[in-house]
Amino acid sequence: MKGVILNIAPNTQIIDLSHEILPQDILAGALLLWRSIPFFPDGTIHLAVIDPGVGTPRRAIAAQIGTHYFVGPDNGLISLLIDEAERTQQALWIGELNRPTYWLPVVSNTFHGRDIFAPAAAHLAAGTSITELSTRIIDPVILAIPRPEKTTYGWVGQVIHIDRFGNLSTNINASILANLNQVIIEIHGNYIDGLVTSFGEQPAGTLVALIDSSGLLAISVVNGNAEHQLSAHIGDIVQLQVRG
Amino acid sequence: MKGVILNIAPNTQIIDLSHEILPQDILAGALLLWRSIPFFPDGTIHLAVIDPGVGTPRRAIAAQIGTHYFVGPDNGLISLLIDEAERTQQALWIGELNRPTYWLPVVSNTFHGRDIFAPAAAHLAAGTSITELSTRIIDPVILAIPRPEKTTYGWVGQVIHIDRFGNLSTNINASILANLNQVIIEIHGNYIDGLVTSFGEQPAGTLVALIDSSGLLAISVVNGNAEHQLSAHIGDIVQLQVRG
Amino acid sequence: MKGVILNIAPNTQIIDLSHEILPQDILAGALLLWRSIPFFPDGTIHLAVIDPGVGTPRRAIAAQIGTHYFVGPDNGLISLLIDEAERTQQALWIGELNRPTYWLPVVSNTFHGRDIFAPAAAHLAAGTSITELSTRIIDPVILAIPRPEKTTYGWVGQVIHIDRFGNLSTNINASILANLNQVIIEIHGNYIDGLVTSFGEQPAGTLVALIDSSGLLAISVVNGNAEHQLSAHIGDIVQLQVRG
Repeated sequence: MKGVILNIAPNTQIIDLSHEILPQDILAGALLLWRSIPFFPDGTIHLAVIDPGVGTPRRAIAAQIGTHYFVGPDNGLISLLIDEAERTQQALWIGELNRPTYWLPVVSNTFHGRDIFAPAAAHLAAGTSITELSTRIIDPVILAIPRPEKTTYGWVGQVIHIDRFGNLSTNINASILANLNQVIIEIHGNYIDGLVTSFGEQPAGTLVALIDSSGLLAISVVNGNAEHQLSAHIGDIVQLQVRG
Repeated sequence: MKGVILNIAPNTQIIDLSHEILPQDILAGALLLWRSIPFFPDGTIHLAVIDPGVGTPRRAIAAQIGTHYFVGPDNGLISLLIDEAERTQQALWIGELNRPTYWLPVVSNTFHGRDIFAPAAAHLAAGTSITELSTRIIDPVILAIPRPEKTTYGWVGQVIHIDRFGNLSTNINASILANLNQVIIEIHGNYIDGLVTSFGEQPAGTLVALIDSSGLLAISVVNGNAEHQLSAHIGDIVQLQVRG
Repeated sequence: MKGVILNIAPNTQIIDLSHEILPQDILAGALLLWRSIPFFPDGTIHLAVIDPGVGTPRRAIAAQIGTHYFVGPDNGLISLLIDEAERTQQALWIGELNRPTYWLPVVSNTFHGRDIFAPAAAHLAAGTSITELSTRIIDPVILAIPRPEKTTYGWVGQVIHIDRFGNLSTNINASILANLNQVIIEIHGNYIDGLVTSFGEQPAGTLVALIDSSGLLAISVVNGNAEHQLSAHIGDIVQLQVRG
């Protein structure tokens, strides 16, 4: 893919964002894009290929979201960014990549990253407009991302991401917590009394809850690995009880 | 290695191609180079260090293959590219890196990537000619890559590469299959009836055969991992029976 | 972090040095920096974030060490470089990053890599001086790195690093060995008679000792993995006996 990009747009600066997303894990990719894109310069083109549907009729898309561009499969990778763009009234334009002129001459059935997405992204970098590359669509695939639910005693959410340190990020946003007094967090029968603001407030090995760097409630073990210690998985239930 | 390159050729654009080749796996490196190089711009210098023989009398080489350059150990990493260059009558020039002027002043016995290959590649990038860097040789090391064999009922080949998704690529080329009618593929006592053109034609978990993005017959599990499901290894036998 | 850097200093050339350091392994990071920095061009800014103390009162620092710059947490990552700079009388200036002007506007408690270190490094790259970014300190955190000890029969040291090939680097420097005649090395009850100069001198599977590419005594298995074969760990004792 990098070779294809440099063939079409030789002066492109190519940055590796992550190679740690597990195969087929679209949700992890969607979260990574949502966490990362705001920190990149305006006009950056984000090329993401987590593509279990490659070779099926799933569409290939390019999107302009606020001041950023995305190129990849239409499988929900930009769901969170679309949601945020709509809430904050950012520019949003999504198009189907349906112009083979901007692809490699021969397109395989198993590696559209190389044959369609990389050349399309490179043409975008080289100055071709998104409207020239693609035809507007209004029904991009949106991931069904679980939302936390209000209960009589607080909220119930779930683990939606586990990073390589074993930290468990939940779908409970800091904005929910801002309106609450002290809380007790429960996961797998473990109770955590209140939030810390950083790992260092508790001794190594302590199970803590805190707001992660993307504003999500997260559960961690200080200098340890919450995933292993709790045998935790994506989808595990996290309960939030308002105290007293 | 990157530091050494930037010291000698500060304006070089450095691209990481892969860090996933297992230690000493020359065949995997040779396949990766063969799959990737054609997609890079003319004049790209491909620096590859899979080098179990570092510090022994194995030679260090630079090569021009068609419009591309290679720098690395003389251990077969470019076998497939040489084979293809000869078949398609591309330019081919291979030289031994035997001019310490173009190396680091102190050369270790265990890291020629840093001490010989990176500086030689950087000098090539900075404009030194390959004939200045090296002395022509005519007997580069060639890997003994197994070839598929014709049988009375079809072909017998073997698994030559397993990627991080668990897809098994074989040494059976699409060109063989083009001349056949429908085929049955057998691996480890599993029979696969015909090829799919993409993963999405069958339900998740199905064992399928298809042509991979480099034109090789491959065996995969849809949204799964054929390596784990079949307990497959490099060298496993794959049989191809012409049907009916 | 890369996005933050490119926002502030768009023309920066960003190089990934390693993503293989295990979480919280400051010693491995310190060794990597010590091994690598001398090979980079003068003026390179080395941004390293192994930061178990993020969010605690541990300081954030920038440092000029010889002709190189470092930005990261004050937790010992540059201990070996400081030690070497002092021994060789290189320039050494260390400052606390205490000017929020040069950070992101909102600073999280869990990702100072993105919020403090990346912007500070980018401002340094863009031309802000280190004295403008930080206030000089004279008491950086120094790692307690174990030193080899002289014994009546030789030296006793320990394994301080294991690479991805399973090679065991010790804290015994080549300079010690230069003054000795032939030696016998013992680890885990295995005796190795003398040093080889490269892996290729012995058959595959042989346990050997050699000087690694950073000048440290290392223990390896030819074309194998000493870590697995010896069930070795960081901290394991390595004895050096002067022979005869």
